[in-house]
Amino acid sequence: MTLRLGAIFDSLAGEFDARLFADPTVLIDKLAPIEAAGLSELSFLSHPKYLNKLATSSAACVIVSPAMQAAALARGACIVVADPYRYFARVTQVWKQAHEPQLLASIHPSAFIDPSAQLAEGVSVGAFVCIGAGAVIGAGARLGEHCVVGREAVVGAHSRLAARVTLGDRCLLGERCILHSGVVIGSDGFGFAPHAGRWEKIEQLGAVRIGNDVEIGANTCIDRGALGDTVIEDGVKLDNLIQIGHNVHVGEHTAMAGCVGVAGSAQIGAHCTIGGGAVVLGHLHLADHVNVSASSVVTRSILKPGHYSGFFPIDDNASWEKNAATLKQLHTLRDRLKQVEKQIALQLKKTD
Amino acid sequence: MTLRLGAIFDSLAGEFDARLFADPTVLIDKLAPIEAAGLSELSFLSHPKYLNKLATSSAACVIVSPAMQAAALARGACIVVADPYRYFARVTQVWKQAHEPQLLASIHPSAFIDPSAQLAEGVSVGAFVCIGAGAVIGAGARLGEHCVVGREAVVGAHSRLAARVTLGDRCLLGERCILHSGVVIGSDGFGFAPHAGRWEKIEQLGAVRIGNDVEIGANTCIDRGALGDTVIEDGVKLDNLIQIGHNVHVGEHTAMAGCVGVAGSAQIGAHCTIGGGAVVLGHLHLADHVNVSASSVVTRSILKPGHYSGFFPIDDNASWEKNAATLKQLHTLRDRLKQVEKQIALQLKKTD
Amino acid sequence: MTLRLGAIFDSLAGEFDARLFADPTVLIDKLAPIEAAGLSELSFLSHPKYLNKLATSSAACVIVSPAMQAAALARGACIVVADPYRYFARVTQVWKQAHEPQLLASIHPSAFIDPSAQLAEGVSVGAFVCIGAGAVIGAGARLGEHCVVGREAVVGAHSRLAARVTLGDRCLLGERCILHSGVVIGSDGFGFAPHAGRWEKIEQLGAVRIGNDVEIGANTCIDRGALGDTVIEDGVKLDNLIQIGHNVHVGEHTAMAGCVGVAGSAQIGAHCTIGGGAVVLGHLHLADHVNVSASSVVTRSILKPGHYSGFFPIDDNASWEKNAATLKQLHTLRDRLKQVEKQIALQLKKTD
Repeated sequence: MTLRLGAIFDSLAGEFDARLFADPTVLIDKLAPIEAAGLSELSFLSHPKYLNKLATSSAACVIVSPAMQAAALARGACIVVADPYRYFARVTQVWKQAHEPQLLASIHPSAFIDPSAQLAEGVSVGAFVCIGAGAVIGAGARLGEHCVVGREAVVGAHSRLAARVTLGDRCLLGERCILHSGVVIGSDGFGFAPHAGRWEKIEQLGAVRIGNDVEIGANTCIDRGALGDTVIEDGVKLDNLIQIGHNVHVGEHTAMAGCVGVAGSAQIGAHCTIGGGAVVLGHLHLADHVNVSASSVVTRSILKPGHYSGFFPIDDNASWEKNAATLKQLHTLRDRLKQVEKQIALQLKKTD
Repeated sequence: MTLRLGAIFDSLAGEFDARLFADPTVLIDKLAPIEAAGLSELSFLSHPKYLNKLATSSAACVIVSPAMQAAALARGACIVVADPYRYFARVTQVWKQAHEPQLLASIHPSAFIDPSAQLAEGVSVGAFVCIGAGAVIGAGARLGEHCVVGREAVVGAHSRLAARVTLGDRCLLGERCILHSGVVIGSDGFGFAPHAGRWEKIEQLGAVRIGNDVEIGANTCIDRGALGDTVIEDGVKLDNLIQIGHNVHVGEHTAMAGCVGVAGSAQIGAHCTIGGGAVVLGHLHLADHVNVSASSVVTRSILKPGHYSGFFPIDDNASWEKNAATLKQLHTLRDRLKQVEKQIALQLKKTD
Repeated sequence: MTLRLGAIFDSLAGEFDARLFADPTVLIDKLAPIEAAGLSELSFLSHPKYLNKLATSSAACVIVSPAMQAAALARGACIVVADPYRYFARVTQVWKQAHEPQLLASIHPSAFIDPSAQLAEGVSVGAFVCIGAGAVIGAGARLGEHCVVGREAVVGAHSRLAARVTLGDRCLLGERCILHSGVVIGSDGFGFAPHAGRWEKIEQLGAVRIGNDVEIGANTCIDRGALGDTVIEDGVKLDNLIQIGHNVHVGEHTAMAGCVGVAGSAQIGAHCTIGGGAVVLGHLHLADHVNVSASSVVTRSILKPGHYSGFFPIDDNASWEKNAATLKQLHTLRDRLKQVEKQIALQLKKTD
């Protein structure tokens, strides 16, 4: 299925101050990266460092910033706009909207919906979905196959749950959220009182509250709070296979890459980014605008915005082995260095 | 829904030697942390370091230890008991029991149960559950929606599987276990024989045996053994998104936090704790009472109880970069230090 | 159920140049590790370092290499073959084939299969499976309970999906693949354009293409590409709980252990191994035959085959604390060492 370039441009005209230097009747049959784009494909150039890819690109049209307008025109057709990357992001949305079969609002006959649940207008419910007593599903929400929505849980308007998502009892999901397959919201937090070498379960009586425009990746888990709730604020983006412990609070528009683990009661600020595989220990505070590198372990509160890292640099194995072995004596090396410094100071005194 | 303080107290009177210094007719409508507890909320104080929060708490009643009885009475109502944290854990259980709708034992009509499967009394089977040939479900067990119980698998009495749990063929689950959504028990272990640059699959012929009172977090996976079984002993608590490889043995009452990975054939003792994101390599032995810090990599057997750690300390990125770069020359730094020490020793000799 | 030793031997006679030194009528009732094998159990010895376990083994028969033939015969019955480990792998397959109830090709009546989907001969479809419009299921493929196959997705011949696998719209799976429970193929990649402190979603328009003979562990996720596709080549083996980001390319016969995270657009070569919990950052290239140790973080492209590592060595916590604290001053230690070296050089000059 193809779209006319002019149709794509027009659909975003109200949002962006963009200019089209191209024949609007050209048919676009794909969106593509600049180095791979073919003659009927639309592409973009977001960063000057890829400028060298522009001249040789076969793309039907390239979205560029004003600074690159001259170079782009020298090649051929282009769209000029202040933020080409965001413009391109919106183009992908226009593209998907046009190409994806439009799901009609419908309730699959195999779904079990408790009679006390409330479904607003335009809700789509897939095969084998279960919706518990007192649950509320907002207008236009879509529940994929095999989703389980617990008792008194709420799905906000226009939120989309992919196949096989669990939203636990009393958990709240905002509007326009996207939850991917295998997501578990509202499993019990990991809370036990030790007693005589055993673990006494602390029932997890809280819930999970998720804001609007939150996206949660496949197989990611968010535990319910022990007493209060676990809270994910508006606009948070979580990648796949992330673990969010009980009573964690994640501030607005914070993004976490895959495989991150956040332990219980951590308070993470707004506009943070957490790299893949990083771990945040429990009960810590991270200020707004903190960026944590992949695989780093946050062991103390970070109260100042900035970029923080902590992982062992990779090396060929033989070098790593030698350095790692020496690392286990680092403290004594420091003491030996101190000793050497003292001796030199003493000699310098003597020779004075 | 509220509970009378006296009713809560009475329900635990047989188990604890506790004293109630409060009006038993007071209505409690929530359990809450001490700093947040309101006028009709019950709280607890487990650690002396939070004593300063006691005096200003608005809680209807606070559970405290005998050492804090005087301070607690000075504030108002309290329950005095030797182990306030465990007492509170039991209160959460009483609370949940009273508030959760009691599920009647029932078999959902949509479930497929092989005629040769045996279900004991009081079993609850949710919508779209599949139970295989020869499976045995113990008395009072509850299988949530979409659970799949394989051929000849066993679910012990009073165990609870949340929605969407897979218990593989021939796997055994003990009594009173709790398995959260997305748990996979009995997937194939990762076993291949290399041959001419390819991997020949070693079929995984063992199973998984899980003891009593085990809790397993959302999306955690436990692989079946290659020849023998993977074994999880009584009272083990596993958090979310944990990977347990084939033929691993986890001793009684060991607890692991989220995102831990345990490679094949590792033998982990009883009463261990493994911090979030830690990795235990294959075929290692960990003694009883070993505590491993978050994100540490266990690369050798640990035969002595104790606390073990190994991860790079987090720092601001600029400092980390400088230290990480230097770390890659650490071995040569050690050699240079040695050289310096020699030279000084030589000079000292000369100047003697 | 037992198998005659001769029957096992004969079933592999066409594939291996092996010799049987044993009574072929002996009944084998289990496969077992050499140290545990009982009188009617078949075992193997793949590595000379376990030779000491041979003499005392009670196994009915042991599979050994020609180099160990004499020692094996001195003990009793054996099968001699050039690659005992691969031979044993094939024996496990023969064993499973003989013991597992043979699933008849059948479509469970509860499955929803879009009328436009195409199912080849001998396909098995479990309870509550959903197959979308235009999907193609190859001959002899088996879809476990609760699987969801999206629109226009393809499952290659003889591939097996365990219970509860999601194969997203337009994703392609090759032949003879094995996908374990909870696998999610084709969830959205993690792509957003930042704008004014928010994240604008980049719709993920690509798909996932998986080759033949690929095995994917429980709860592992593979995201669909943003514009192009995410590609997993033939023979790749992925363990449980692995995250593969969008547009990643994994070369033939590469194997990854549990909990690995591969960020978007990474290009991993053929015949690589990635240890458990390792992280590969985005847009990097790994050459063929690169081996990465567990928990290492790949932060730069690795263009040379070899073994690479990078993780902090574990130690008792007190030692670790001291060394980790010193590590945060490592750069200044290096500067101090330089200073010391200078001073010594100066003194040596003076004393010359």
